[in-house]
Amino acid sequence: MLTRIDHIGIACFDLDKTVEFYRATYGFEVFHSEVNEEQGVREAMLKINGTSDGGASYLQLLEPTREDSAVGKWLAKNGEGVHHIAFGTADVDGDAEAIRGKGVRVLYDEPRTGSMGSRITFLHPKDCHGVLTELVTSAPDAQAEH
Amino acid sequence: MLTRIDHIGIACFDLDKTVEFYRATYGFEVFHSEVNEEQGVREAMLKINGTSDGGASYLQLLEPTREDSAVGKWLAKNGEGVHHIAFGTADVDGDAEAIRGKGVRVLYDEPRTGSMGSRITFLHPKDCHGVLTELVTSAPDAQAEH
Repeated sequence: MLTRIDHIGIACFDLDKTVEFYRATYGFEVFHSEVNEEQGVREAMLKINGTSDGGASYLQLLEPTREDSAVGKWLAKNGEGVHHIAFGTADVDGDAEAIRGKGVRVLYDEPRTGSMGSRITFLHPKDCHGVLTELVTSAPDAQAEH
Repeated sequence: MLTRIDHIGIACFDLDKTVEFYRATYGFEVFHSEVNEEQGVREAMLKINGTSDGGASYLQLLEPTREDSAVGKWLAKNGEGVHHIAFGTADVDGDAEAIRGKGVRVLYDEPRTGSMGSRITFLHPKDCHGVLTELVTSAPDAQAEH
């Protein structure tokens, strides 16, 4: 069951400038940053609020590390903006299977590693009214940080 | 101060079909629906989670009521997808003024009426790394519903 908006994924050309925009404009600070080579992104997570399921909601700022990554290609076509939205669940495997059974294309056979050691998968935007949609189960220790 | 992700605004061609997609796929139910003639939209709010500031996070599904509305023009150009993101604040007037003072264009001189009697304004996406960004102060009775 999806129990929160986990994050909004925003693609940008320059991560440092975009982090600085969010800090200077709104006072949002970087909670965590990492490079995910499999996804081909450098990213910064800005924690915005805690959520009623014991998790949190973040902005995830994404800069591609290579032009041929999914985010790199998206950015070349669309320019900066909202790349995807993500819902948090305690059971990404079970939810992905259930959603696949409803005829929505799930992009990975098995969940992969996302931000902060989470396990993630994506749903095809053409099956989701144009919205690239991620499902996330946080790592146990990441949940404890909240 | 912005204290939560208030909602993600998603533009769609057919509100009823999109509501049904979110219900059938994820189990999300309509919390509130209304027509906002000033904004030129029919909308449904799906409440996803409560937030640590005492508010909540929603998906806001938006169908234009006329082609020449902001959402209608956006949809004709981009197709369905994420139209804007919104941050919640106790003081939309003060925050909008402070952000305007930092050189970010605020689209309204004074906040207007948004979902569920809230007061809202928007920041120019070209000043926000491509993200149309809304600031929201909930109506006092809407806050109580949470």
